[in-house]
Amino acid sequence: MLTEFIWPLRVYYEDTDAGGVVYHANYLKYFERARSEWLEKIGVDQTQLLANNTVFAVQKADIEYLKPARLHEELDIVSSITQVRGASFNFEQKLYRHKERQQTLCKANIQIVCLKLDSFTPCRIPAAVKEELQRVS
Amino acid sequence: MLTEFIWPLRVYYEDTDAGGVVYHANYLKYFERARSEWLEKIGVDQTQLLANNTVFAVQKADIEYLKPARLHEELDIVSSITQVRGASFNFEQKLYRHKERQQTLCKANIQIVCLKLDSFTPCRIPAAVKEELQRVS
Amino acid sequence: MLTEFIWPLRVYYEDTDAGGVVYHANYLKYFERARSEWLEKIGVDQTQLLANNTVFAVQKADIEYLKPARLHEELDIVSSITQVRGASFNFEQKLYRHKERQQTLCKANIQIVCLKLDSFTPCRIPAAVKEELQRVS
Amino acid sequence: MLTEFIWPLRVYYEDTDAGGVVYHANYLKYFERARSEWLEKIGVDQTQLLANNTVFAVQKADIEYLKPARLHEELDIVSSITQVRGASFNFEQKLYRHKERQQTLCKANIQIVCLKLDSFTPCRIPAAVKEELQRVS
Repeated sequence: MLTEFIWPLRVYYEDTDAGGVVYHANYLKYFERARSEWLEKIGVDQTQLLANNTVFAVQKADIEYLKPARLHEELDIVSSITQVRGASFNFEQKLYRHKERQQTLCKANIQIVCLKLDSFTPCRIPAAVKEELQRVS
Repeated sequence: MLTEFIWPLRVYYEDTDAGGVVYHANYLKYFERARSEWLEKIGVDQTQLLANNTVFAVQKADIEYLKPARLHEELDIVSSITQVRGASFNFEQKLYRHKERQQTLCKANIQIVCLKLDSFTPCRIPAAVKEELQRVS
Repeated sequence: MLTEFIWPLRVYYEDTDAGGVVYHANYLKYFERARSEWLEKIGVDQTQLLANNTVFAVQKADIEYLKPARLHEELDIVSSITQVRGASFNFEQKLYRHKERQQTLCKANIQIVCLKLDSFTPCRIPAAVKEELQRVS
Repeated sequence: MLTEFIWPLRVYYEDTDAGGVVYHANYLKYFERARSEWLEKIGVDQTQLLANNTVFAVQKADIEYLKPARLHEELDIVSSITQVRGASFNFEQKLYRHKERQQTLCKANIQIVCLKLDSFTPCRIPAAVKEELQRVS
């Protein structure tokens, strides 16, 4: 059973800043790519959710920056789903150099809430989606 | 009559890259901020346009990068509208250091097309908007 | 004495995503603009710090997303410095609609660490800078 | 001989805007990812270039936006090098849906100039790099 999802990526100029390393806000983009790919892989179609007036939005993000990632480095994001509730669920996500696990570069706890797109008010996670999330958590 | 619009801005870390200067794609963001502010100033409400299924989209952008802009610099974008046609119009936009006009850092010719939001097909610029654009061009 | 710093900004297309609201990572950019402007205002020159091999980096960020900000909205970031230690200090930052304080749209606790740029290892905040930070905290 | 380079990518929320499609400046990021990957593949090490005070910078970009790319779409960037001069070279880059070539979504002509990093003045492309570029053009 899949309870951890690894997504590789590379650092480009667009991701870096004048300090020579990845700009702090861009780690959130990396983490979201990994979540999107994982959701897609387990059959959760976010485009379909949008069409049904439902969107997964970040409700809380707690991030720790431990070591900088640098231009052209290859990285891995390792994600796991730690909690699934009625209208929200949580990811723990860690960033490593590619194929290494010794040094965590950045780690985050991300809380996702299910919202109605037209009102941005919370709603229950669709049952089929919730089942998939619980299966991999 | 207003035929040139000056919009000041400052360079933050988010705008720079590991080369120590503003990342090339981000100049397009700067130019769009200036266009948005100008359109707002002459009474073109883009939020209202969106609600009416109409969006202004970039159709062509020709950009020349002449001198780099650096972290924390204050800059001015000087914009003018050079052509207004039935479904599209053009901006010439130049980036300078704040309150200087000697050295152009970056210049662009941006063609905007009026699109129906649901189909992304071109449509005529609303008459009232076209009149405003012509008034300042 | 200045113990709260208000920085206004506007939402542009660059900030939004297909959900129709500001993309979650971009709030971190907004908060950093406000911190940069405040540091500049109290006389902390980050460009000079970089030239002296010193950089202020985000070490931790805890963010809560309460209400979405939308295209073309005018917003205020209200920042305060809550702690100053030897090598790090903390900001509390809140995002509101411009000139309103009723509804917090987003709030963050951001921990900044002083690093040597060449090694990215922590170092003491320069004494003159620390004094300024304490003066406004 | 490799004279065309294909780089696949996917559209995430970070790439889109409130119009529901990829934000126009972000296509420049996509194109740069493809150039970076191609340069790496033919043995041009941009990190090494930076360490040697040399940087490849965008000097001109002419972009045409033909059809929008949307959230979660898989895309291909097809790149070719069209000219190599003493201090600069040109890419032609086109964006398609993944494994399709019928509809060009976006195309660009990007001129890259070789600069000294400390002065941002043009310099000759290192001979070994130029040879590689000519080999694939």
